[in-house]
Amino acid sequence: MDTERAVCESFQRAAQLVGQRWVPQIVWVLLGGPSRYSVVRTAIPEISDTVLSDRLRDLESAGILTRAVTPSTPVLIEYSLTERGRELAKVIDGLATWADRWAATGA
Amino acid sequence: MDTERAVCESFQRAAQLVGQRWVPQIVWVLLGGPSRYSVVRTAIPEISDTVLSDRLRDLESAGILTRAVTPSTPVLIEYSLTERGRELAKVIDGLATWADRWAATGA
Repeated sequence: MDTERAVCESFQRAAQLVGQRWVPQIVWVLLGGPSRYSVVRTAIPEISDTVLSDRLRDLESAGILTRAVTPSTPVLIEYSLTERGRELAKVIDGLATWADRWAATGA
Repeated sequence: MDTERAVCESFQRAAQLVGQRWVPQIVWVLLGGPSRYSVVRTAIPEISDTVLSDRLRDLESAGILTRAVTPSTPVLIEYSLTERGRELAKVIDGLATWADRWAATGA
């Protein structure tokens, strides 16, 4: 029962994460490989800097991506999907395919 | 661009639906076959009648399930997953597997 509740809570956290605005798009960009902040920003022009920074921090906390800092001049910051993040991308893809297919049929 | 926005909105609606409390459990029960209200109620003892009725109505509006009324005495009401609902069950399964796997590794 406690295990069931824990699984249920982690499921709901996962669904909420996936349903958060811009999360699928950010995961999608990073699926192409490690990316600098400016690359993600350019790939999603509608997002504001504040929101993008917040989302990247949330996704880092959730273990979906890592942030690597190279102490060059200027400092190089790159975001990469973790294995967990790459697996989440597959789930997002499944949900997107479902939504896309049934959106086309109306209702 | 408009198509992209439409896909994005239908994706978010789908993610919100999946993340709604009890929705995965209800879909799960109906995956076993058409079920009467009382069967769903018994399978998910923690849910209240008000919430279960609301969720069943929402899922019917979203085209996930159908409600069939047989005018017997007493009236027989059965809920069944649509094809769209059965496909959503697969997506829910993928998300549950992901959540379950990574919940076990912590954070």
